[in-house]
Amino acid sequence: MLTSIPAPVGSLLDGGTAYAVGITLWDKPVSRILTVAAAQLGPIQRVDGRPAVIKRMCALLTQAGEQGCDLVVFPELALTTFFPRWYMEDQAQVDAFFEAQMPSADTQPLFDLARALKIGFCFGYAELVEEDGRLRRFNTSILVDKDGKIVLKYRKIHLPGHAEDEPWRAFQHLEKRYFEIGNLNWPVVRTMGGVMGMAICNDRRWPETYRVMGLQGVEMVLLGYNTPRHNPPAPEHDRLSEFHNQLSMQAGAYQNGTWVIGTAKCGVEEGCEMIGASSIVAPSGQIVAQAITQDDELVVARCDLDMGRAYKDGIFNFAKHRQPDQYRLIVERTGAIAPE
Amino acid sequence: MLTSIPAPVGSLLDGGTAYAVGITLWDKPVSRILTVAAAQLGPIQRVDGRPAVIKRMCALLTQAGEQGCDLVVFPELALTTFFPRWYMEDQAQVDAFFEAQMPSADTQPLFDLARALKIGFCFGYAELVEEDGRLRRFNTSILVDKDGKIVLKYRKIHLPGHAEDEPWRAFQHLEKRYFEIGNLNWPVVRTMGGVMGMAICNDRRWPETYRVMGLQGVEMVLLGYNTPRHNPPAPEHDRLSEFHNQLSMQAGAYQNGTWVIGTAKCGVEEGCEMIGASSIVAPSGQIVAQAITQDDELVVARCDLDMGRAYKDGIFNFAKHRQPDQYRLIVERTGAIAPE
Repeated sequence: MLTSIPAPVGSLLDGGTAYAVGITLWDKPVSRILTVAAAQLGPIQRVDGRPAVIKRMCALLTQAGEQGCDLVVFPELALTTFFPRWYMEDQAQVDAFFEAQMPSADTQPLFDLARALKIGFCFGYAELVEEDGRLRRFNTSILVDKDGKIVLKYRKIHLPGHAEDEPWRAFQHLEKRYFEIGNLNWPVVRTMGGVMGMAICNDRRWPETYRVMGLQGVEMVLLGYNTPRHNPPAPEHDRLSEFHNQLSMQAGAYQNGTWVIGTAKCGVEEGCEMIGASSIVAPSGQIVAQAITQDDELVVARCDLDMGRAYKDGIFNFAKHRQPDQYRLIVERTGAIAPE
Repeated sequence: MLTSIPAPVGSLLDGGTAYAVGITLWDKPVSRILTVAAAQLGPIQRVDGRPAVIKRMCALLTQAGEQGCDLVVFPELALTTFFPRWYMEDQAQVDAFFEAQMPSADTQPLFDLARALKIGFCFGYAELVEEDGRLRRFNTSILVDKDGKIVLKYRKIHLPGHAEDEPWRAFQHLEKRYFEIGNLNWPVVRTMGGVMGMAICNDRRWPETYRVMGLQGVEMVLLGYNTPRHNPPAPEHDRLSEFHNQLSMQAGAYQNGTWVIGTAKCGVEEGCEMIGASSIVAPSGQIVAQAITQDDELVVARCDLDMGRAYKDGIFNFAKHRQPDQYRLIVERTGAIAPE
């Protein structure tokens, strides 16, 4: 820890302001700067087994280790192809995409490698769990710390798409069929020197997602997604997919003074094109680093967790400026009701 | 009304798709397409009297009439210089910037001209009102319909800045001193063929603002602002002012499928630079038109109020996708509380 060690800046810096910057940098606990990777995954076809996927994830982890990363964020439903694109009636066929254990025999190598490299990581998977005396299914992500311990679990709340067969769509989006709505709210945890939260895919378009975590002081939101370019009900917006993706993450970051690590599974998967553009977004809303391929790619940035402070204490000082009494409609009404 | 008149497209269009587009255009009730102007105002100095300002606003109204506008949106606190930049102890001195009547003798020409031109308009002013047996002061905006009737009033909820003298600032921002928090929530009204709402300046950075109106089916948010480039507590963000302005309005528009008409008072006012970039933002989040000066300037766009429909019925179908139970923290907590 370099905290409270005087800044050895002397002759390198010329004058008061620069000297002060030097002091700020050196005075900071090292643990508040995290080197983070968005580990984008290219397409995973249906025939690809979990071991092949884990091998790719391990290759990215190894690369992250070489680049000095502290934390690696993988996409939503990282272990298989994006199966909600198919309507299936046979529950056994559906459940083949789910994980009943975590870690499992298949995923253990990922946990082992990360612990050996002393890297924290986060990824999404389809979770099958016995809870409340019945089998339940969630679209889940977990955060694993540098010691290999699962320190945070999140279950996706904003499930997009539909629940019934809609064969007119080139690709269906049956998340509302295969998953229950998450029942863990948006928890945050203090780990790796910061306050971490998670969200999954469609969650990122809803400002409520970031705000609930912002109210818990979140400093970094870990967010995986699988986003088909083509949205059958509104194909005229397909060309805006990347713009909407970025806009949502940038606004969420800025309005809560938090980092957002958005990681895509992308490319042409089973004939369906999914957008990439995995991004590391600063608390200023600026995109610091972004993927340039539609394939396995590591996007790395050094993230100063204190960077959100000026927003959290200033223009977005919630205690000073928020007016919760005026927001009641947000929880009292679900759908929109327009005046007569 | 062209509704239900068959589309006279015939030979102009070649093929099925184009023909369908022609029908859609002509089949639409004319009243759902509004030609709207963001009437940006350049600086207003302290010595400028209201009559001089009203004259400038009338010139913009006349121009809007020539361009076939239905609705003109003026900035926040449009009638005077942005007085919260000064600390004043003499209440009479403060109240000189307020309006005790609306319309007043000074503003009547604006109302008269707009009615003659059959143009609706919206502007902001400092409102002094006797209410609940006492004098109260709000940062207010009103919407006036084409017949000159005030159909909507909004009082600013997110007052930025501070309440006490902070002489270390090059320019102060004493909105919390001179105004009470608005007590009308964010009302909307059906007028000019659409559902209209209003917000003022700092409101635009808070997603709650748009969402409360989105839950009332808002189709167009009329939003005036005065935004100093320089924010004394975080000067390192000054260069991001336009970016944050756009980001907030674009996200609010997209996430609620609504038009946003953002209108600045801008330029160097009493030595203080304020950003311009008045913008008309579509429900897609795209900026359709934007000011290019720091002076009086009319920014015009034809706005199809039905354009938000695909968002409201699709990806942001609130009734289908929102989970208010999960949003409770938004109203139950004001300031952020981080985990231990």
